[in-house]
Amino acid sequence: MTQLEAARKGIITPEMEEVARNEGRAPEEIRALVAEGAAVIPANRNHSGVSACGIGRGLRTKVNVNLGISPDCRNHEVEFAKAELAERMGANALMDLSCEGDTRPFRKALIARTRLPVGTVPVYDAEGMGKSLEDLTADDFLSMLARHAEDGVDFVTLHAGITRECLDLLEEGERIMPVVSRGGSLIAEWMRKTGEENPFYACFDRVLEICREYDVTISLGDACRPGAVHDATDSLQIQELITLGRLVKRARKAGVQVMVEGPGHMRLPEIEANVLLQKKLCHGAPFYVLGPVVTDVAPGYDHITSAIGGALAAWFGADFLCYVTPAEHVRLPTLEDVREGIIAARIAAHAADLAKGIPGAEAWDRCMSEARGRLDWDAMMEEALDPEKPSRMRAESVPGDPRVCTMCGRMCSIKRMQEAAPHP
Amino acid sequence: MTQLEAARKGIITPEMEEVARNEGRAPEEIRALVAEGAAVIPANRNHSGVSACGIGRGLRTKVNVNLGISPDCRNHEVEFAKAELAERMGANALMDLSCEGDTRPFRKALIARTRLPVGTVPVYDAEGMGKSLEDLTADDFLSMLARHAEDGVDFVTLHAGITRECLDLLEEGERIMPVVSRGGSLIAEWMRKTGEENPFYACFDRVLEICREYDVTISLGDACRPGAVHDATDSLQIQELITLGRLVKRARKAGVQVMVEGPGHMRLPEIEANVLLQKKLCHGAPFYVLGPVVTDVAPGYDHITSAIGGALAAWFGADFLCYVTPAEHVRLPTLEDVREGIIAARIAAHAADLAKGIPGAEAWDRCMSEARGRLDWDAMMEEALDPEKPSRMRAESVPGDPRVCTMCGRMCSIKRMQEAAPHP
Repeated sequence: MTQLEAARKGIITPEMEEVARNEGRAPEEIRALVAEGAAVIPANRNHSGVSACGIGRGLRTKVNVNLGISPDCRNHEVEFAKAELAERMGANALMDLSCEGDTRPFRKALIARTRLPVGTVPVYDAEGMGKSLEDLTADDFLSMLARHAEDGVDFVTLHAGITRECLDLLEEGERIMPVVSRGGSLIAEWMRKTGEENPFYACFDRVLEICREYDVTISLGDACRPGAVHDATDSLQIQELITLGRLVKRARKAGVQVMVEGPGHMRLPEIEANVLLQKKLCHGAPFYVLGPVVTDVAPGYDHITSAIGGALAAWFGADFLCYVTPAEHVRLPTLEDVREGIIAARIAAHAADLAKGIPGAEAWDRCMSEARGRLDWDAMMEEALDPEKPSRMRAESVPGDPRVCTMCGRMCSIKRMQEAAPHP
Repeated sequence: MTQLEAARKGIITPEMEEVARNEGRAPEEIRALVAEGAAVIPANRNHSGVSACGIGRGLRTKVNVNLGISPDCRNHEVEFAKAELAERMGANALMDLSCEGDTRPFRKALIARTRLPVGTVPVYDAEGMGKSLEDLTADDFLSMLARHAEDGVDFVTLHAGITRECLDLLEEGERIMPVVSRGGSLIAEWMRKTGEENPFYACFDRVLEICREYDVTISLGDACRPGAVHDATDSLQIQELITLGRLVKRARKAGVQVMVEGPGHMRLPEIEANVLLQKKLCHGAPFYVLGPVVTDVAPGYDHITSAIGGALAAWFGADFLCYVTPAEHVRLPTLEDVREGIIAARIAAHAADLAKGIPGAEAWDRCMSEARGRLDWDAMMEEALDPEKPSRMRAESVPGDPRVCTMCGRMCSIKRMQEAAPHP
């Protein structure tokens, strides 16, 4: 049984109990959310020791970290170090986006090493199948998925919504950047070359059988996500979303857990409507957002452009933020890029949780502010989302009076107010 | 005549013409905004060569950079270097927040060196007056302001709204952090010790005379801004804002340009209401926001927490963002902190300009996206908000194929789509 099937039968699984503990909620609440499809718990039965992570309505906003080798950067050790860093820094899931040659050895090693749920994009194996793209068959695509499922992957991105109808809309040429999804562009090219329908769409029932067998959560990919603010919320994007919503219903009917991925690049005022559309068209499925990046002009700083967009999206109801690093649009991220990306995404997630009133969120800010009010620097560093950086910064700039900092020195307003009227 | 007086008489000053050129607007539009008080142009007649910067409704969102020596960091050269960096990186104004000893030599040198409008907080001189705080008279406070005005300061923060009524609200003790404003805490302490009313409030007519003489723009400071998300939008903050709104009317009546400062720390859902309240209670005066920082828990990363809040505030109508650096709450910022702070604030400002549909904002993103669509790396770097960092990042991670980047290598979706169907 999948988590979804168990939940529907009224069974509270150990994974639901673990999620309930982590969220400070009743196990029955988690079961009900999973049964409804409003939350998922990606946990492949072949991923032994995976820690259960609940993603969905009313739960804490989760953060995913992408890693994996690319044709130009093939250092497995660096990618394993990213996984360890992600775990240490409080990320909630990993995606192995390796897209070079035989991806299996790295994937299996990663799944064996990490307790975080692992996601992949099986179609990235298309180039490692030993034949040219147009010679691949629908069975080949399904076999990529099956291998990932067997290997213990907890959630898979499937670009099942980019159909031939989308290709027609693409031909209309309204976009500055037609397709910016790696997997989406592979499938688009295959459809163009073969004249056939998207195999993940055409064979969706077989996709569901595979995913059900291992309880792989499907993350329906948005191949047509906008890669430029100009291209956001256009007919192509929404057409694909309608298709994804229909596939959500089919997945749930088959007992397969499912979430939906979303944009991308978009201006601030479009974010709320996009979350609303996803939640409505996709029947309340958990929403996994990539960004949104709120302006195109800041390469090198897209952890910031997407922290702005991600905070808004999650406040409006998105459940899962894919981190974006400073390296986005520029290069494969380094370890330092990964660190900055995680922190920016965690800030966005927590700001949204505060906004949504998620239980426990406010208490954290209160602890930090009370520590500030007492000028208790040890407590401030303990409460800090990342204690390392502010501790280092403070050590590099030592104040004359250890109670204050070098910003204001003895002019510190907190100190002044405390001395004037001691704070309880 | 001040800019406001000239505008009311129908005169288009050279400064209004300069603002019109920079904004791509008609000079008459700028004059009308200034006449109404919906925009200000801080330009002290003693600041020779100051470049005119329009701050207000419908104009591009502007960014201020704080600098200045503190009791623990007294290196003038580092602070001058911050000013040069700010100018080079596209900041629109500087505030010299020096609060150590005789602030005049540094201030005069800064004003002589920079073309950016310079703001200060004259009350920071309170500790350099050679007597203890309680011995200062209202005249002493006015003389601090007069010296700054004479020296050519373009805008001054005056905490004129923290009245004895606010002290009473403070006594109710609802806040975690009572007063986090340096200037505000000085005045609160002086009021408590002397039993007198806030001198900038009590003697506001004399304040106006001084500011009118030099055309110093008043930036009404929010001494009672929240320093913790818990403390936001409380009776104390709004009480002060009501007072500031009344002072706005008096300043305008006296021909003095005026803007209003705002919070601070607050949760995402409170930002829109705060901007609305400021605009209503302060009669459409330009809104200068410090943050807002959307969560307290991320010291070391408050350039990000405030980029999130600042983008929202400016989208909803704030006109001027005070940058926040990663050093906020930790130390006086280094040059590198200043750089990161400027970029984060400029991202927030531009994301908001895109959201508000400010003329020219969309064209920039379009240029960047078109360059991306062509895989034209030189053009991407030229269009980048900060070309230096992404250029360096790319140089450190060289792709096998110079057309792509090491994130995807030959799997690049843009390249794939171009080859499949060449993009015009």
